[in-house]
Amino acid sequence: MTNPWEQRFAERTTRMKSSFIRELLKVTNQPDVISFGGGFPAGELFPVEQVKEACAKVLAEHPLKALQYSTTEGYDPLRQYLVDDYRSRGINIGLENLQITGGSQQALDFIGRIFINNGDKVLVESPTYLGALQAWNAYGPEYVTVQTDDDGMRIDELEERIQAEKPKFIYVLPNFHNPMGVSLTVERRKKIVELSHHYNIPLVEDDPYGKLIFEGEMLPSIAAFDCAYREGSDDFNGNVIHTSTFSKILAPGLRIGWAIGPTDVIKKMTQAKQGADLQCSTFDQYVAYELVAGDWLPDHIETIKRVYKERRDTMLQAFEDFMPEGTTWTTPAGGLFLWLRLPEGCDALELFPKAVEERVAYVPGMPFYPIDGPRNTMRLNFSASQPDKIREGVRRISVMVKNALAEKK
Amino acid sequence: MTNPWEQRFAERTTRMKSSFIRELLKVTNQPDVISFGGGFPAGELFPVEQVKEACAKVLAEHPLKALQYSTTEGYDPLRQYLVDDYRSRGINIGLENLQITGGSQQALDFIGRIFINNGDKVLVESPTYLGALQAWNAYGPEYVTVQTDDDGMRIDELEERIQAEKPKFIYVLPNFHNPMGVSLTVERRKKIVELSHHYNIPLVEDDPYGKLIFEGEMLPSIAAFDCAYREGSDDFNGNVIHTSTFSKILAPGLRIGWAIGPTDVIKKMTQAKQGADLQCSTFDQYVAYELVAGDWLPDHIETIKRVYKERRDTMLQAFEDFMPEGTTWTTPAGGLFLWLRLPEGCDALELFPKAVEERVAYVPGMPFYPIDGPRNTMRLNFSASQPDKIREGVRRISVMVKNALAEKK
Repeated sequence: MTNPWEQRFAERTTRMKSSFIRELLKVTNQPDVISFGGGFPAGELFPVEQVKEACAKVLAEHPLKALQYSTTEGYDPLRQYLVDDYRSRGINIGLENLQITGGSQQALDFIGRIFINNGDKVLVESPTYLGALQAWNAYGPEYVTVQTDDDGMRIDELEERIQAEKPKFIYVLPNFHNPMGVSLTVERRKKIVELSHHYNIPLVEDDPYGKLIFEGEMLPSIAAFDCAYREGSDDFNGNVIHTSTFSKILAPGLRIGWAIGPTDVIKKMTQAKQGADLQCSTFDQYVAYELVAGDWLPDHIETIKRVYKERRDTMLQAFEDFMPEGTTWTTPAGGLFLWLRLPEGCDALELFPKAVEERVAYVPGMPFYPIDGPRNTMRLNFSASQPDKIREGVRRISVMVKNALAEKK
Repeated sequence: MTNPWEQRFAERTTRMKSSFIRELLKVTNQPDVISFGGGFPAGELFPVEQVKEACAKVLAEHPLKALQYSTTEGYDPLRQYLVDDYRSRGINIGLENLQITGGSQQALDFIGRIFINNGDKVLVESPTYLGALQAWNAYGPEYVTVQTDDDGMRIDELEERIQAEKPKFIYVLPNFHNPMGVSLTVERRKKIVELSHHYNIPLVEDDPYGKLIFEGEMLPSIAAFDCAYREGSDDFNGNVIHTSTFSKILAPGLRIGWAIGPTDVIKKMTQAKQGADLQCSTFDQYVAYELVAGDWLPDHIETIKRVYKERRDTMLQAFEDFMPEGTTWTTPAGGLFLWLRLPEGCDALELFPKAVEERVAYVPGMPFYPIDGPRNTMRLNFSASQPDKIREGVRRISVMVKNALAEKK
């Protein structure tokens, strides 16, 4: 049976694919599977009591406004909170530089919508955030890649690729990179801003996890270095669009993210948002504002950092204890993920069914490579599992890998 | 000062315009302006107590799930509620035929994203919903129009335009049409389904207000006639994509809408949603489910209908009492809007600044015409103002119109 819609899909749908991760993880939802696959924050840390209080307060004080249509740009007190937060970090934005979006995912979609013509070259890291590729594929870019190592995007390669390819923009994940967990060094952050200005190629800085640093201080944002580079300029009219979200410090179920950028870019983004869905949930924005305006938040972030650090440490120790020789991994200073490299010859995608047999799940590294990459890598999430589960899950992965290596001999 | 982003906007941004209505209404936010301009439901009818209870229940019973990431398709109990509601109305869908979206606006955007190639012909009413045009313009369609009269889209013209233009799909607002307030007759609903099958041209039925009927019974949906046409088919694999929303019966601030359609269309829509924003607010979906699952809802809808009918009647009476000869209007049987036609020679757009001087606002009809239309029309919202304000507002419009007519002599 066909219907007339099926014969009418737009050409761009041939480039839209269902998320590999979401499809893969459907098989791992059974309760006895230890999953390092998803990108979930630890639910047991959600500020449930504070959300209850915030809902009650919003519905007592602003019931009609919080349930009504509101402006496309977002709830002004929430936007002002974010503006003040960025200004305290050396990023001199005003309200006109910030658009509230449905998670930072929607900000990425809008960047695609307002900048990518079919065939445009977009420079991304290899590997990079799968959701950015998924958002942009519909707009038909050609990806140009630069390798990412344990210090973030490789700047030597970046300059060479800029010269050779003249990409439309550069996309970089500076903090606790998804999927690798690595961070861009301060030196490289400065250099990337210099290159951006030297070659007049703008930058997208995607920073969903920056505040979740559990070793050292929060690193200055690339947007801050861009402001510093343009010293004396008193508006935010530079080379950087920066995206972030409350998903990792409040709760992802509220779907509140944002983009900051030059005024004219934000104006176009607001137009995109009008056409896309008019606005984000007014109610969730009011609730999020009550949450972030509370003085409990810094302590809450400290708690998340402490718990995630403990989980990361448990995972690293389990690697030491269980994984076979030849396995290496990144050591993230924050965030939710790390990157495991199996011994040469192991194919993490091919091994996935065996992992499911062992009742453990991960995401094979392959889909994170925009073009191509090594097949022995995997992304592991350490934020969503208790330490005992983490240790047991790594043990199960080690069994699977050791069996695979034994079979090869 | 320029930045490198400004030189890089995608070609499609030239077709993206800020909503005329939103821009226009910014000047009318002063408290002494009586505004018939927006499309707001009556805030004082929002079920605030029920929302309070729903929030408390969700956070007591499902705190971790309601604040966590969830599936792109939407919250299953909410989807099942909608499936059951549609099935009770002769529309034989299953869960696989329904995608939750950020208001019905996002459903319209996804329809553009998955069906419209640059240059595709899309058949719309003249006038039609401005937000649909705004969602689709980015994808570059060419609009083909059919006039809408007091019985909805003109079917004689429709067949002629289908034959001449072979559009990719037809977009129709059957109930309390935005902006005209008119409804498509049952006879025309049946005929439009027959034409759709005869010419193999699919249909989008946009129905945000269908339940808000205050004269007569709710009319069968075009989707129901499509199911009846395919009698014996036990799946929902026909010619209709149908969109709707909770914005007008619960609260627009929650941003919960949906699309129903053939399974393969919904699969593509889910892929679009993954790239666009991953999912709607988990929390709002849980809250909306608690709200619609409650047995208070039918009474609540009755209250909305009673209040809106009173407001409509007040507006119609005020037209009779105040408007100069030569003015005509539609008499909506439900919904939020009606359509006023000023005496020949009056230009509602040109008169707008004078209306603001009189401290009253409306939306000139012009932007609702995809190509071109008469300039003496305006859309008036009657749901968001108290009866005494409605009467006074119409009086002010009548003063302005009479002055304009006097000046012409």
